[in-house]
Amino acid sequence: MDSTEKQNIKSIDKIIVTSLKNEELQEFNRIFYGRVDQHTLALKDSSLKLAASNHFEISGYDFPGHTEETRSPRKIRIGIIQHSIAISTNKPIKQQREAIFMKVSKLIEAAGEEGVNVLCLQEAWSMPFAFCTREKIPWCEFAENVTDGLSTQFLKSFAIKYNMVIISPILERDEFRGDLIWNTAVVINEKGIVMGSHRKNHIPRVGDFNESTYYFEGNTGHPVFETKYGRIAINICYGRHHPLNWLMFGLNGAEVVFNPSATVSGLSEHLWAIEARNAAIANSYFTCAINRVGTEIFPNEFTSGDGKQAHNDFGHFYGSSYVTAPDGTRTPSLSRTMDGLLISQIDLNMCRQIKDKWGFAMTQRLDMYARSLSKYVEGKELQLVKDK
Amino acid sequence: MDSTEKQNIKSIDKIIVTSLKNEELQEFNRIFYGRVDQHTLALKDSSLKLAASNHFEISGYDFPGHTEETRSPRKIRIGIIQHSIAISTNKPIKQQREAIFMKVSKLIEAAGEEGVNVLCLQEAWSMPFAFCTREKIPWCEFAENVTDGLSTQFLKSFAIKYNMVIISPILERDEFRGDLIWNTAVVINEKGIVMGSHRKNHIPRVGDFNESTYYFEGNTGHPVFETKYGRIAINICYGRHHPLNWLMFGLNGAEVVFNPSATVSGLSEHLWAIEARNAAIANSYFTCAINRVGTEIFPNEFTSGDGKQAHNDFGHFYGSSYVTAPDGTRTPSLSRTMDGLLISQIDLNMCRQIKDKWGFAMTQRLDMYARSLSKYVEGKELQLVKDK
Repeated sequence: MDSTEKQNIKSIDKIIVTSLKNEELQEFNRIFYGRVDQHTLALKDSSLKLAASNHFEISGYDFPGHTEETRSPRKIRIGIIQHSIAISTNKPIKQQREAIFMKVSKLIEAAGEEGVNVLCLQEAWSMPFAFCTREKIPWCEFAENVTDGLSTQFLKSFAIKYNMVIISPILERDEFRGDLIWNTAVVINEKGIVMGSHRKNHIPRVGDFNESTYYFEGNTGHPVFETKYGRIAINICYGRHHPLNWLMFGLNGAEVVFNPSATVSGLSEHLWAIEARNAAIANSYFTCAINRVGTEIFPNEFTSGDGKQAHNDFGHFYGSSYVTAPDGTRTPSLSRTMDGLLISQIDLNMCRQIKDKWGFAMTQRLDMYARSLSKYVEGKELQLVKDK
Repeated sequence: MDSTEKQNIKSIDKIIVTSLKNEELQEFNRIFYGRVDQHTLALKDSSLKLAASNHFEISGYDFPGHTEETRSPRKIRIGIIQHSIAISTNKPIKQQREAIFMKVSKLIEAAGEEGVNVLCLQEAWSMPFAFCTREKIPWCEFAENVTDGLSTQFLKSFAIKYNMVIISPILERDEFRGDLIWNTAVVINEKGIVMGSHRKNHIPRVGDFNESTYYFEGNTGHPVFETKYGRIAINICYGRHHPLNWLMFGLNGAEVVFNPSATVSGLSEHLWAIEARNAAIANSYFTCAINRVGTEIFPNEFTSGDGKQAHNDFGHFYGSSYVTAPDGTRTPSLSRTMDGLLISQIDLNMCRQIKDKWGFAMTQRLDMYARSLSKYVEGKELQLVKDK
């Protein structure tokens, strides 16, 4: 954890709103968020009460797009949830999972009541992010089957009840293929049926992110799920650092790419507002950056490969989940310290509208890059100009 | 131009510094810039005086890197210059260019006196950005030969005097190959010799950026220039929207990539802080985003393809040039309204240090993407999962 971090500060968004006035705030909003007016969504009193009584933040924003003559607007509501774990990591696994289920059910309920059509949870949402420990016992026991694991079973009923597509990022156990563990996002459609899943493409080896101790680079390519509500994809966590990962989801037709993550403040907080937003801009689609919240403390101490003493905590997961539209405008972040639900009403027509406006897809010269990358991979000579 | 823009506001960086106090400012700096302390460079009194008397901003920042046992630090100073045009666009071409030369010479002098080793000017620096007009006459006459055009001649003497590599982005006339016009960056080494040049890879068709009326997509690939001071490359303007363009410069070995640009506030100001910074993060190198300043008014009116009335100005070029290090930390921006010189003292060793830390190059699975991109270009089936 960055020693200078001030845990009492909820978000830089909130600092700005309370410190800047009038013209200066407008100008900050215009340049920082891409629009002077945040286009706040009115939420139901019942949702606000549910949030208050369960100690989570709820907020909503609108991204309207422009009216077309020959296509109707394709407005949907997407929701993203960030949350801390619910009880101590030294409790029995079943209890830990149950407690998370209990807490998250309230957030899902709020999303359902607000008419969210596609909801995404954070990475490995049903467990603590125990990969810092490098211990196999007991953490591997959190791994679940995609089709009928406890998380999938739990979420199916919500999907049906609220007519909602739910993306459930879990630790997967593939019982039928080598009993392997994977970092996987399960897509459950609005009928409660598993449409498919996607395995994390890029696995970190940085700081306490010892995930390659548990699972390998994903083998599912870059699937885009054509749901009732739109074409969605999932770029899991560390994949957000890789522009080519974002690109392939876009080429396969994604209109919304969710980025369920788990990342801590000393490592990545200054990168967080950049990467998923850049992906939205470069690929003319919506992106949703989701991070977990809170500090997770583990029973046995571990070292972090940084010369410091052994310790028991992973550092602070700083939340700050946000959504970016294809035109690069974005929502403020959820809190750095609280559970939260962020709802965005989006018009999927914006993807094509922005492609027409900016022309990035048209001008990207993919044929040239396919050749250049192939040459690089084959070890051909680099294009280096020596001094005379 | 964005009608809400407040021209009296110099930069959001300056708003923040004057509005936030103590702990909140520290926290903003930590999250927004990536470091609490800006590591300001002490500049010479003579440079500050030169800046004041010629009405330009000058600022400097340090990016120290960490000490290694087996490699010495590779500290260099890089400089970027932003400026407005100098006299009215209805004056004779020679006068316009002379006036820009005169103004820019002061900024180059300041860079030289501060020991800048590699200096980059803005896109098409020796002329107004007249491509909004779609007129060939008289603007094509600003096009110059790479080897001995007036800009190259002008800059050679400074390169020799200050022992400085200078990147000169110009409108090129290739007199020997079809008399074609290109958007080109010329690299002049510290002996005043032209090392080579690079032509803009991606040409915009957005808003008033009618550049494809004048020149085609570049045919020079992704050269990296191995100068006395380090390996540098140039991603010209609209290429910053293309992650693959940034990637190829990185794969060819670039340690610093300059992004000389010309872009206006109604169009891109909310994207400006994102794209070059994301490229620095994704590719573990330094990036320098450079934009021109001021509003350029042209003799004949033109339309902007946006249903609005014909007019004579291009909108406000918002400056805001900045530098990002491989670890994602960045400098504050230069002003939105004034000419400026931004100096950064950087340790090129940081590129490898950050590659070791974050592992993006190691984990990027280029072989998979080379295959995926080739398939996409060949028109193979997309990876789309249909609903059941």
